[in-house]
Amino acid sequence: MNDSIKPTERTRVKRLPKRGNYDREVINAILDEGFICHVGFVADGQPYVIPTGYARIGNDLYIHGSAASRMLRGIAEGIDVCVTVTQVDGLVLARSAFHHSINYRSVVILGKAELVETADEKNAVLEAFTEHVIPGRWAEVRWPNELELKATTVLKLPINEASAKIRTGGPVDDEEDYAMNIWAGVIPLKLTKRDPIPDDRLADSIAIPAHVINYDR
Amino acid sequence: MNDSIKPTERTRVKRLPKRGNYDREVINAILDEGFICHVGFVADGQPYVIPTGYARIGNDLYIHGSAASRMLRGIAEGIDVCVTVTQVDGLVLARSAFHHSINYRSVVILGKAELVETADEKNAVLEAFTEHVIPGRWAEVRWPNELELKATTVLKLPINEASAKIRTGGPVDDEEDYAMNIWAGVIPLKLTKRDPIPDDRLADSIAIPAHVINYDR
Repeated sequence: MNDSIKPTERTRVKRLPKRGNYDREVINAILDEGFICHVGFVADGQPYVIPTGYARIGNDLYIHGSAASRMLRGIAEGIDVCVTVTQVDGLVLARSAFHHSINYRSVVILGKAELVETADEKNAVLEAFTEHVIPGRWAEVRWPNELELKATTVLKLPINEASAKIRTGGPVDDEEDYAMNIWAGVIPLKLTKRDPIPDDRLADSIAIPAHVINYDR
Repeated sequence: MNDSIKPTERTRVKRLPKRGNYDREVINAILDEGFICHVGFVADGQPYVIPTGYARIGNDLYIHGSAASRMLRGIAEGIDVCVTVTQVDGLVLARSAFHHSINYRSVVILGKAELVETADEKNAVLEAFTEHVIPGRWAEVRWPNELELKATTVLKLPINEASAKIRTGGPVDDEEDYAMNIWAGVIPLKLTKRDPIPDDRLADSIAIPAHVINYDR
Protein backbone atom coordinates (compact mmCIF):
# COMPACT_ATOMS: atom_id res chain seq x y z
CA MET A 1 0.00 0.00 0.00
CA ASN A 2 1.23 3.47 -0.80
CA ASP A 3 1.88 5.96 1.95
CA SER A 4 -1.05 8.29 1.44
CA ILE A 5 -2.04 11.53 3.12
CA LYS A 6 -5.67 11.43 4.19
CA PRO A 7 -7.49 14.15 2.25
CA THR A 8 -9.48 16.57 4.37
CA GLU A 9 -12.53 18.64 3.44
CA ARG A 10 -9.99 21.40 2.70
CA THR A 11 -7.51 19.49 0.53
CA ARG A 12 -9.72 17.04 -1.35
CA VAL A 13 -9.73 17.97 -5.06
CA LYS A 14 -13.41 18.49 -5.82
CA ARG A 15 -13.37 19.94 -9.34
CA LEU A 16 -12.07 17.18 -11.67
CA PRO A 17 -11.33 14.78 -8.76
CA LYS A 18 -9.43 12.38 -11.00
CA ARG A 19 -6.66 15.00 -11.10
CA GLY A 20 -6.26 14.77 -7.32
CA ASN A 21 -3.51 12.67 -5.78
CA TYR A 22 -2.68 12.09 -2.11
CA ASP A 23 0.32 9.74 -2.30
CA ARG A 24 3.33 10.99 -0.43
CA GLU A 25 5.61 9.68 -3.16
CA VAL A 26 3.81 11.75 -5.80
CA ILE A 27 3.63 14.84 -3.59
CA ASN A 28 7.32 14.56 -2.64
CA ALA A 29 8.42 14.16 -6.27
CA ILE A 30 6.67 17.40 -7.23
CA LEU A 31 8.12 19.22 -4.22
CA ASP A 32 11.62 17.93 -4.94
CA GLU A 33 11.57 19.03 -8.56
CA GLY A 34 10.70 22.66 -7.87
CA PHE A 35 12.46 25.15 -5.66
CA ILE A 36 10.08 28.14 -5.59
CA CYS A 37 6.83 27.95 -3.64
CA HIS A 38 4.08 30.51 -3.18
CA VAL A 39 3.26 31.11 0.48
CA GLY A 40 -0.23 32.35 1.30
CA PHE A 41 -1.04 33.97 4.63
CA VAL A 42 -3.55 36.45 6.01
CA ALA A 43 -2.67 39.78 7.62
CA ASP A 44 -5.40 42.19 8.73
CA GLY A 45 -7.92 40.10 6.80
CA GLN A 46 -6.02 40.49 3.52
CA PRO A 47 -4.52 37.41 1.85
CA TYR A 48 -0.93 37.75 0.61
CA VAL A 49 0.89 35.38 -1.74
CA ILE A 50 4.67 35.64 -1.74
CA PRO A 51 7.16 33.58 -3.76
CA THR A 52 10.07 32.11 -1.84
CA GLY A 53 12.53 29.21 -1.91
CA TYR A 54 11.99 25.98 -0.01
CA ALA A 55 13.40 22.53 0.64
CA ARG A 56 11.88 19.28 1.91
CA ILE A 57 13.38 17.03 4.58
CA GLY A 58 11.30 13.91 5.18
CA ASN A 59 7.71 14.92 5.89
CA ASP A 60 8.51 18.58 6.54
CA LEU A 61 8.76 21.53 4.20
CA TYR A 62 11.16 24.33 5.16
CA ILE A 63 11.18 27.94 4.06
CA HIS A 64 13.72 30.50 5.13
CA GLY A 65 14.59 34.12 4.79
CA SER A 66 15.81 37.18 6.62
CA ALA A 67 15.00 37.48 10.30
CA ALA A 68 13.83 40.99 9.35
CA SER A 69 11.10 39.68 7.06
CA ARG A 70 7.61 40.68 8.18
CA MET A 71 6.14 37.69 6.41
CA LEU A 72 8.34 35.17 8.18
CA ARG A 73 7.86 36.86 11.55
CA GLY A 74 4.10 36.69 11.09
CA ILE A 75 4.17 33.08 9.98
CA ALA A 76 6.48 32.13 12.83
CA GLU A 77 3.74 33.20 15.25
CA GLY A 78 1.73 30.19 14.16
CA ILE A 79 -0.80 31.65 11.74
CA ASP A 80 -2.46 29.45 9.12
CA VAL A 81 -0.57 29.23 5.86
CA CYS A 82 -0.99 27.62 2.48
CA VAL A 83 2.14 26.69 0.56
CA THR A 84 1.67 25.90 -3.12
CA VAL A 85 4.26 24.51 -5.54
CA THR A 86 3.45 24.43 -9.25
CA GLN A 87 5.34 22.84 -12.13
CA VAL A 88 4.15 23.81 -15.60
CA ASP A 89 4.74 20.95 -18.07
CA GLY A 90 3.12 22.13 -21.27
CA LEU A 91 0.42 23.87 -23.24
CA VAL A 92 -2.49 21.71 -24.36
CA LEU A 93 -3.82 22.87 -27.72
CA ALA A 94 -7.29 21.59 -28.49
CA ARG A 95 -9.40 22.07 -31.62
CA SER A 96 -11.81 24.28 -29.69
CA ALA A 97 -10.73 27.33 -27.70
CA PHE A 98 -12.83 25.99 -24.81
CA HIS A 99 -10.81 22.79 -24.38
CA HIS A 100 -7.39 24.39 -24.34
CA SER A 101 -5.60 23.55 -21.14
CA ILE A 102 -2.26 23.44 -19.37
CA ASN A 103 -0.36 20.36 -18.24
CA TYR A 104 0.87 20.92 -14.72
CA ARG A 105 1.64 19.30 -11.40
CA SER A 106 0.87 21.25 -8.24
CA VAL A 107 0.95 20.59 -4.51
CA VAL A 108 -1.03 22.48 -1.88
CA ILE A 109 0.01 22.17 1.78
CA LEU A 110 -2.09 23.64 4.59
CA GLY A 111 -0.99 24.10 8.16
CA LYS A 112 0.87 26.19 10.69
CA ALA A 113 4.60 26.68 10.43
CA GLU A 114 6.89 26.57 13.44
CA LEU A 115 10.16 28.34 14.07
CA VAL A 116 13.36 26.30 13.84
CA GLU A 117 15.30 27.45 16.87
CA THR A 118 18.65 25.68 17.19
CA ALA A 119 21.71 26.61 15.14
CA ASP A 120 22.32 22.92 14.33
CA GLU A 121 18.89 22.38 12.85
CA LYS A 122 19.06 25.71 11.00
CA ASN A 123 22.39 24.69 9.55
CA ALA A 124 21.03 21.32 8.43
CA VAL A 125 18.12 23.05 6.72
CA LEU A 126 20.38 25.54 4.94
CA GLU A 127 22.47 22.62 3.71
CA ALA A 128 19.33 20.85 2.46
CA PHE A 129 18.16 24.09 0.90
CA THR A 130 21.43 24.68 -0.98
CA GLU A 131 21.68 21.05 -2.11
CA HIS A 132 18.03 21.08 -3.17
CA VAL A 133 18.52 24.06 -5.46
CA ILE A 134 21.92 23.00 -6.81
CA PRO A 135 23.25 19.56 -5.81
CA GLY A 136 26.97 19.49 -5.01
CA ARG A 137 27.14 23.17 -4.08
CA TRP A 138 27.24 22.93 -0.28
CA ALA A 139 30.60 21.15 -0.09
CA GLU A 140 32.28 23.91 -2.09
CA VAL A 141 31.06 27.12 -0.46
CA ARG A 142 31.75 28.98 2.75
CA TRP A 143 29.29 27.74 5.34
CA PRO A 144 27.12 30.04 7.46
CA ASN A 145 28.74 31.50 10.56
CA GLU A 146 26.98 32.14 13.84
CA LEU A 147 25.90 35.67 12.90
CA GLU A 148 24.51 34.54 9.58
CA LEU A 149 22.55 31.73 11.22
CA LYS A 150 21.10 34.26 13.67
CA ALA A 151 20.12 36.54 10.80
CA THR A 152 18.27 33.70 9.08
CA THR A 153 14.76 32.71 10.04
CA VAL A 154 13.90 29.11 9.21
CA LEU A 155 10.34 27.84 9.38
CA LYS A 156 9.13 24.24 9.32
CA LEU A 157 5.73 23.25 7.93
CA PRO A 158 4.72 19.61 8.48
CA ILE A 159 3.35 18.02 5.31
CA ASN A 160 0.30 16.54 7.02
CA GLU A 161 -2.60 18.17 5.19
CA ALA A 162 -1.71 18.24 1.53
CA SER A 163 -2.80 17.22 -1.92
CA ALA A 164 -1.39 17.14 -5.42
CA LYS A 165 -3.27 18.02 -8.59
CA ILE A 166 -1.97 16.79 -11.91
CA ARG A 167 -3.00 17.17 -15.54
CA THR A 168 -1.11 15.19 -18.18
CA GLY A 169 -1.64 14.09 -21.76
CA GLY A 170 -3.18 15.54 -24.89
CA PRO A 171 -6.30 17.59 -25.50
CA VAL A 172 -9.79 16.15 -25.02
CA ASP A 173 -12.07 17.66 -27.64
CA ASP A 174 -15.79 17.34 -28.23
CA GLU A 175 -16.37 14.34 -30.49
CA GLU A 176 -17.71 16.42 -33.40
CA ASP A 177 -14.61 18.67 -33.37
CA TYR A 178 -12.14 15.88 -34.16
CA ALA A 179 -13.08 16.12 -37.85
CA MET A 180 -12.01 19.78 -38.03
CA ASN A 181 -8.90 20.77 -39.94
CA ILE A 182 -7.12 22.15 -36.84
CA TRP A 183 -3.74 21.11 -35.43
CA ALA A 184 -4.03 19.79 -31.89
CA GLY A 185 -1.45 18.50 -29.47
CA VAL A 186 0.87 19.53 -26.67
CA ILE A 187 3.77 21.98 -26.57
CA PRO A 188 5.96 20.66 -23.72
CA LEU A 189 7.62 23.33 -21.56
CA LYS A 190 10.57 22.94 -19.25
CA LEU A 191 12.63 25.28 -17.12
CA THR A 192 16.06 25.01 -18.76
CA LYS A 193 19.45 26.36 -17.86
CA ARG A 194 21.48 28.60 -20.12
CA ASP A 195 25.25 29.02 -20.09
CA PRO A 196 26.53 30.06 -16.65
CA ILE A 197 27.64 33.69 -16.31
CA PRO A 198 30.79 34.06 -14.16
CA ASP A 199 30.80 36.81 -11.55
CA ASP A 200 32.59 40.01 -12.68
CA ARG A 201 35.04 39.64 -9.83
CA LEU A 202 35.80 35.95 -10.39
CA ALA A 203 39.50 35.16 -10.69
CA ASP A 204 40.41 33.70 -14.11
CA SER A 205 42.12 30.79 -12.38
CA ILE A 206 38.83 29.47 -10.97
CA ALA A 207 37.28 26.92 -13.35
CA ILE A 208 33.57 26.23 -13.59
CA PRO A 209 32.94 23.31 -11.20
CA ALA A 210 31.18 20.08 -12.22
CA HIS A 211 28.08 20.87 -10.16
CA VAL A 212 27.54 24.00 -12.31
CA ILE A 213 28.45 22.41 -15.67
CA ASN A 214 26.23 19.38 -15.02
CA TYR A 215 23.42 21.36 -13.44
CA ASP A 216 20.04 20.53 -14.87
CA ARG A 217 16.51 20.69 -13.59
CA MET B 1 7.12 60.78 -16.24
CA ASN B 2 6.33 57.10 -16.05
CA ASP B 3 2.83 55.89 -15.30
CA SER B 4 3.30 54.65 -11.76
CA ILE B 5 0.97 52.90 -9.36
CA LYS B 6 0.98 54.61 -5.99
CA PRO B 7 2.34 52.12 -3.45
CA THR B 8 0.11 51.53 -0.43
CA GLU B 9 1.08 50.38 3.07
CA ARG B 10 0.19 46.90 1.79
CA THR B 11 2.13 46.86 -1.48
CA ARG B 12 5.23 48.88 -0.68
CA VAL B 13 8.29 46.62 -0.74
CA LYS B 14 9.78 47.08 2.74
CA ARG B 15 12.48 44.42 2.86
CA LEU B 16 15.16 45.39 0.29
CA PRO B 17 13.13 48.39 -0.98
CA LYS B 18 15.46 48.92 -3.95
CA ARG B 19 13.96 45.72 -5.41
CA GLY B 20 10.50 47.31 -5.44
CA ASN B 21 9.07 48.82 -8.60
CA TYR B 22 5.71 50.51 -9.16
CA ASP B 23 5.87 51.47 -12.85
CA ARG B 24 2.96 50.15 -14.87
CA GLU B 25 5.28 49.41 -17.77
CA VAL B 26 7.49 47.18 -15.61
CA ILE B 27 4.50 45.49 -13.95
CA ASN B 28 2.77 44.90 -17.30
CA ALA B 29 5.90 43.42 -18.88
CA ILE B 30 6.17 40.84 -16.09
CA LEU B 31 2.47 40.02 -16.33
CA ASP B 32 2.62 39.69 -20.12
CA GLU B 33 5.56 37.31 -20.05
CA GLY B 34 3.97 34.78 -17.72
CA PHE B 35 0.70 32.95 -18.04
CA ILE B 36 0.28 31.20 -14.67
CA CYS B 37 -0.59 33.21 -11.57
CA HIS B 38 -1.11 32.12 -7.99
CA VAL B 39 -4.42 33.35 -6.58
CA GLY B 40 -4.67 33.78 -2.83
CA PHE B 41 -8.02 34.00 -1.06
CA VAL B 42 -9.42 33.26 2.37
CA ALA B 43 -12.21 30.77 3.11
CA ASP B 44 -13.29 30.05 6.71
CA GLY B 45 -10.19 31.89 7.91
CA GLN B 46 -7.82 29.60 5.98
CA PRO B 47 -5.70 31.08 3.16
CA TYR B 48 -5.61 29.11 -0.09
CA VAL B 49 -3.19 29.59 -2.97
CA ILE B 50 -4.26 28.12 -6.29
CA PRO B 51 -2.39 28.26 -9.63
CA THR B 52 -4.44 29.33 -12.63
CA GLY B 53 -4.07 30.98 -16.04
CA TYR B 54 -4.60 34.68 -16.63
CA ALA B 55 -4.43 37.43 -19.23
CA ARG B 56 -4.12 41.21 -19.02
CA ILE B 57 -6.19 43.72 -20.97
CA GLY B 58 -5.17 47.31 -20.27
CA ASN B 59 -5.20 47.89 -16.52
CA ASP B 60 -7.20 44.76 -15.70
CA LEU B 61 -6.11 41.22 -15.02
CA TYR B 62 -8.52 38.44 -15.95
CA ILE B 63 -8.71 34.91 -14.65
CA HIS B 64 -11.19 32.33 -15.82
CA GLY B 65 -12.31 28.80 -15.19
CA SER B 66 -15.27 26.51 -14.84
CA ALA B 67 -18.52 28.01 -13.58
CA ALA B 68 -18.52 25.02 -11.20
CA SER B 69 -15.25 26.11 -9.51
CA ARG B 70 -15.70 26.86 -5.81
CA MET B 71 -12.72 29.17 -5.87
CA LEU B 72 -14.08 31.32 -8.69
CA ARG B 73 -17.58 31.40 -7.18
CA GLY B 74 -16.15 32.61 -3.89
CA ILE B 75 -13.95 35.21 -5.52
CA ALA B 76 -16.83 36.42 -7.69
CA GLU B 77 -18.66 37.37 -4.48
CA GLY B 78 -16.15 40.16 -3.99
CA ILE B 79 -13.76 38.77 -1.39
CA ASP B 80 -10.24 40.14 -1.07
CA VAL B 81 -7.70 38.39 -3.25
CA CYS B 82 -3.99 38.54 -3.90
CA VAL B 83 -2.76 37.53 -7.34
CA THR B 84 0.97 36.87 -7.66
CA VAL B 85 2.94 36.24 -10.84
CA THR B 86 6.55 35.06 -10.57
CA GLN B 87 9.19 34.63 -13.26
CA VAL B 88 12.35 32.80 -12.21
CA ASP B 89 15.36 34.06 -14.16
CA GLY B 90 18.30 32.29 -12.59
CA LEU B 91 20.24 30.91 -9.67
CA VAL B 92 22.72 33.26 -8.02
CA LEU B 93 25.74 31.35 -6.73
CA ALA B 94 27.76 33.27 -4.17
CA ARG B 95 30.99 32.30 -2.43
CA SER B 96 29.14 31.96 0.87
CA ALA B 97 26.04 29.80 1.35
CA PHE B 98 24.40 32.80 3.04
CA HIS B 99 24.54 35.05 -0.04
CA HIS B 100 23.09 32.57 -2.50
CA SER B 101 20.00 34.01 -4.09
CA ILE B 102 17.57 33.72 -6.96
CA ASN B 103 17.05 36.17 -9.78
CA TYR B 104 13.34 36.71 -10.27
CA ARG B 105 10.67 39.18 -11.23
CA SER B 106 7.37 39.05 -9.40
CA VAL B 107 4.17 41.08 -9.30
CA VAL B 108 1.67 41.18 -6.44
CA ILE B 109 -1.82 42.58 -7.08
CA LEU B 110 -4.31 43.14 -4.26
CA GLY B 111 -7.98 43.84 -4.67
CA LYS B 112 -11.45 42.47 -5.21
CA ALA B 113 -12.37 40.72 -8.45
CA GLU B 114 -15.65 41.27 -10.20
CA LEU B 115 -17.66 38.93 -12.39
CA VAL B 116 -17.62 39.53 -16.15
CA GLU B 117 -21.27 39.13 -17.11
CA THR B 118 -21.86 39.66 -20.83
CA ALA B 119 -21.09 37.03 -23.46
CA ASP B 120 -19.32 39.66 -25.60
CA GLU B 121 -16.89 40.66 -22.88
CA LYS B 122 -16.36 37.01 -21.90
CA ASN B 123 -15.58 36.20 -25.51
CA ALA B 124 -13.10 39.09 -25.77
CA VAL B 125 -11.35 37.88 -22.62
CA LEU B 126 -11.13 34.29 -23.87
CA GLU B 127 -9.59 35.60 -27.08
CA ALA B 128 -7.07 37.65 -25.10
CA PHE B 129 -6.40 34.65 -22.90
CA THR B 130 -5.72 32.31 -25.84
CA GLU B 131 -3.60 34.86 -27.64
CA HIS B 132 -1.69 35.61 -24.45
CA VAL B 133 -0.70 31.97 -23.98
CA ILE B 134 -0.02 31.22 -27.64
CA PRO B 135 -0.16 34.12 -30.12
CA GLY B 136 -1.83 33.27 -33.44
CA ARG B 137 -3.91 30.46 -32.00
CA TRP B 138 -7.32 32.16 -31.74
CA ALA B 139 -7.80 32.65 -35.50
CA GLU B 140 -7.32 28.94 -36.15
CA VAL B 141 -9.51 27.25 -33.55
CA ARG B 142 -13.23 26.72 -33.06
CA TRP B 143 -14.52 29.64 -31.02
CA PRO B 144 -16.64 29.23 -27.88
CA ASN B 145 -20.35 28.69 -28.40
CA GLU B 146 -23.09 30.05 -26.17
CA LEU B 147 -23.12 27.01 -23.88
CA GLU B 148 -19.35 27.11 -23.44
CA LEU B 149 -19.43 30.81 -22.61
CA LYS B 150 -22.12 30.10 -19.99
CA ALA B 151 -19.99 27.32 -18.51
CA THR B 152 -17.02 29.68 -18.18
CA THR B 153 -16.65 32.06 -15.28
CA VAL B 154 -14.49 35.10 -16.05
CA LEU B 155 -13.29 37.43 -13.31
CA LYS B 156 -11.75 40.87 -13.66
CA LEU B 157 -9.27 42.26 -11.14
CA PRO B 158 -8.32 45.93 -11.62
CA ILE B 159 -4.55 46.46 -11.38
CA ASN B 160 -4.82 49.41 -8.99
CA GLU B 161 -2.94 48.23 -5.94
CA ALA B 162 0.14 46.41 -7.13
CA SER B 163 3.90 46.24 -6.95
CA ALA B 164 6.73 44.44 -8.68
CA LYS B 165 9.79 43.01 -6.99
CA ILE B 166 12.89 42.30 -9.03
CA ARG B 167 16.33 40.84 -8.39
CA THR B 168 18.89 40.84 -11.20
CA GLY B 169 22.62 40.53 -11.57
CA GLY B 170 25.39 38.53 -9.95
CA PRO B 171 26.10 37.56 -6.35
CA VAL B 172 27.01 40.12 -3.71
CA ASP B 173 29.50 38.54 -1.33
CA ASP B 174 31.12 39.77 1.85
CA GLU B 175 34.29 41.62 0.92
CA GLU B 176 36.62 39.12 2.62
CA ASP B 177 35.05 36.19 0.73
CA TYR B 178 36.03 37.45 -2.75
CA ALA B 179 39.53 36.06 -2.23
CA MET B 180 38.21 32.52 -1.75
CA ASN B 181 38.81 29.87 -4.37
CA ILE B 182 35.10 29.36 -5.08
CA TRP B 183 33.28 29.72 -8.39
CA ALA B 184 30.58 32.37 -8.25
CA GLY B 185 28.13 33.60 -10.84
CA VAL B 186 24.66 33.09 -12.24
CA ILE B 187 23.01 30.08 -13.85
CA PRO B 188 20.27 31.64 -16.03
CA LEU B 189 17.01 29.69 -16.22
CA LYS B 190 14.26 30.01 -18.79
CA LEU B 191 11.01 28.20 -19.48
CA THR B 192 11.70 26.63 -22.87
CA LYS B 193 9.56 24.72 -25.32
CA ARG B 194 10.35 21.23 -26.53
CA ASP B 195 9.19 19.62 -29.78
CA PRO B 196 5.40 19.71 -30.12
CA ILE B 197 3.61 16.37 -29.62
CA PRO B 198 0.72 15.89 -32.08
CA ASP B 199 -2.56 14.60 -30.68
CA ASP B 200 -3.06 10.82 -31.14
CA ARG B 201 -6.17 11.47 -33.20
CA LEU B 202 -4.65 14.16 -35.43
CA ALA B 203 -5.10 13.47 -39.15
CA ASP B 204 -1.77 13.03 -40.99
CA SER B 205 -2.83 15.67 -43.50
CA ILE B 206 -2.79 18.45 -40.88
CA ALA B 207 0.60 20.20 -40.79
CA ILE B 208 2.03 21.91 -37.71
CA PRO B 209 0.99 25.57 -38.02
CA ALA B 210 3.42 28.49 -37.85
CA HIS B 211 2.12 29.66 -34.46
CA VAL B 212 3.19 26.30 -32.99
CA ILE B 213 6.50 26.02 -34.85
CA ASN B 214 7.50 29.58 -33.97
CA TYR B 215 6.15 29.47 -30.43
CA ASP B 216 8.59 30.72 -27.86
CA ARG B 217 8.28 32.25 -24.42
